[in-house]
Amino acid sequence: MSSDAAPIEVAPSCPAPLVITDRILLGHGSGGQMTADLVARYFLPAFRNPYLDRLDDQAVLDIGGARLAFTTDSYVVSPLFFPGGDIGTLAVNGTVNDLAMAGARPLYLSAGFILEEGFPLADLRRIAASMSAAAQAAGVLLVTGDTKVVDRGKADGCFINTAGLGTVPPGVEISASGARPGDLVVLSGPIAEHGMTIMATRAELELESPIASDTAPLHELVRAMLDTGGELHCLRDPTRGGVATAMNEIARQSGVGIVLDEATIIVREPVRGVCELLGLDPLYVANEGKLLAVVAPWDVDRVLGGMRARADGRDAQIIGVVVEDPERLVVLKTRIGGRRIVDTLQGDQLPRIC
Amino acid sequence: MSSDAAPIEVAPSCPAPLVITDRILLGHGSGGQMTADLVARYFLPAFRNPYLDRLDDQAVLDIGGARLAFTTDSYVVSPLFFPGGDIGTLAVNGTVNDLAMAGARPLYLSAGFILEEGFPLADLRRIAASMSAAAQAAGVLLVTGDTKVVDRGKADGCFINTAGLGTVPPGVEISASGARPGDLVVLSGPIAEHGMTIMATRAELELESPIASDTAPLHELVRAMLDTGGELHCLRDPTRGGVATAMNEIARQSGVGIVLDEATIIVREPVRGVCELLGLDPLYVANEGKLLAVVAPWDVDRVLGGMRARADGRDAQIIGVVVEDPERLVVLKTRIGGRRIVDTLQGDQLPRIC
Repeated sequence: MSSDAAPIEVAPSCPAPLVITDRILLGHGSGGQMTADLVARYFLPAFRNPYLDRLDDQAVLDIGGARLAFTTDSYVVSPLFFPGGDIGTLAVNGTVNDLAMAGARPLYLSAGFILEEGFPLADLRRIAASMSAAAQAAGVLLVTGDTKVVDRGKADGCFINTAGLGTVPPGVEISASGARPGDLVVLSGPIAEHGMTIMATRAELELESPIASDTAPLHELVRAMLDTGGELHCLRDPTRGGVATAMNEIARQSGVGIVLDEATIIVREPVRGVCELLGLDPLYVANEGKLLAVVAPWDVDRVLGGMRARADGRDAQIIGVVVEDPERLVVLKTRIGGRRIVDTLQGDQLPRIC
Repeated sequence: MSSDAAPIEVAPSCPAPLVITDRILLGHGSGGQMTADLVARYFLPAFRNPYLDRLDDQAVLDIGGARLAFTTDSYVVSPLFFPGGDIGTLAVNGTVNDLAMAGARPLYLSAGFILEEGFPLADLRRIAASMSAAAQAAGVLLVTGDTKVVDRGKADGCFINTAGLGTVPPGVEISASGARPGDLVVLSGPIAEHGMTIMATRAELELESPIASDTAPLHELVRAMLDTGGELHCLRDPTRGGVATAMNEIARQSGVGIVLDEATIIVREPVRGVCELLGLDPLYVANEGKLLAVVAPWDVDRVLGGMRARADGRDAQIIGVVVEDPERLVVLKTRIGGRRIVDTLQGDQLPRIC
């Protein structure tokens, strides 16, 4: 966990490969560096305000005496149905989790459907049922919605946007900019399950040990962590771009470096097998039911205790440490004792994963 | 304005033509009867709760002592750019207006972009600039967002979802279920301008007198109406499905009939010309900067005075009266003295108008 071990093998300030294009590319939707560039070049300058500039996955607003978290995500996953869930489950859990990552109690969702002419109503019924079950499980109400239909060939079956509203308890201040040197990084469980399930389904792989998406609401796990009274500085659910990208976002926004210990990051065997088969690094693969927390070192035992007492935090581990680093690098201590820089996802490793 | 004149020519309870299909049709996105059927059959049963069941264009929520309006809309308009605005202008004004129709002060928006691979970044920049200008004009901040990219051929350039949050002042209770017999119906200005502009643009009509979308934020007009102290029972912006559909929604949800006077409903000459050319009834054509209000009769002068003092309410007119009617019909007194039932839009007169 210390940051002064073997020397780093990659030049520490290698610039991100600049993509020169006048068109949207699939990589702009990866959740990685290209998405960040797009946001930085096209959206932040147009809408500049202190809420958006924080680059968190939600805004925390003071409205009429209430402290509210507000977030949105569109879901374009392909295929719509996959082991462990479907686009409806994701659309509820994903937005619930973006609220939870501000320490908020999720309360209300909106839903906007964009449907393609010809989409089977039986599938729509199945998706609505999944959303209903997920909303009930997460204790949120879907209170307002909208439906649009576009002509055949102008969408891909069904896209769903959900926006979410929740209340942030007094005193809770969690943001990707809150990490400080000495803090420890906690991961709630095994990684890469959602992304590899989507990829395996898309590739129609016949797996000996079936794998399933980890899609799940995380707000109760967060509540349990807050209830320990431990100092939580950052929370992030490593979705598009995976653990690597989430760690880089925290490093960049907090102005720190992070050293991760590969041996402590769990990838279940069948998931690792699919990663190897498809040549993908699990650190970059999307999760939909895991969280990363940056915790004050003196509180980490308490927080871990609170997590491990629950089924969804049973495998929680300390996976890294926050260090001073003006280069804001994320470095991985590998199993074999080497060290490599873990950069933000650059391209479009896994398009349409959520 | 009285409801006891010439006999009605159409059987008063003709059932809506039942569309038997196991697939999504374009008409399901019309905002008319097929949309209502889809919502009633697939969404309401799955998500049943008192907020959604009101079938208003927004939910009004009590959160932490604040009274908040929350709404969402996706925008799939084709073409993306048209005289008077573009998809970005619509995405801001449309959601601002859904908040305003609850009497709310719009405050914050989210934005979710679904972009097609190959979409020109210059167009994205233009759309972001329009959204920024519209947000500034409406006094709202875009505080959280999301970007997804789908492969070429799987979307139509750019879809945008916006969700909106605003505060509802104490004592303001406005809902489509608030109309009472004797109330008067006020329309804020000339109709059918947005929808006919889209249709004319799509048809590449060469018009002698150019027409433009009326897209505009309506919350300040609503504020001026509320400031008169007049009793506002319902507010609705007649977007998809037009004045006819909005009136039917109010009639159905309030359990009343409505009698409209055709002579008082303004359609500007060039717009009327395009309607006639394309064979469309302006009562069913979408508006994006007009509102319908149902007002207590003793307050209508005050409210009209407040509206006409503003540029965006200068042409406000009383266009109808709410009557007792167990059939909940909307009836139009025509210019030539006849009467005809104005039903909800049935099919897909104008797909992808917003």
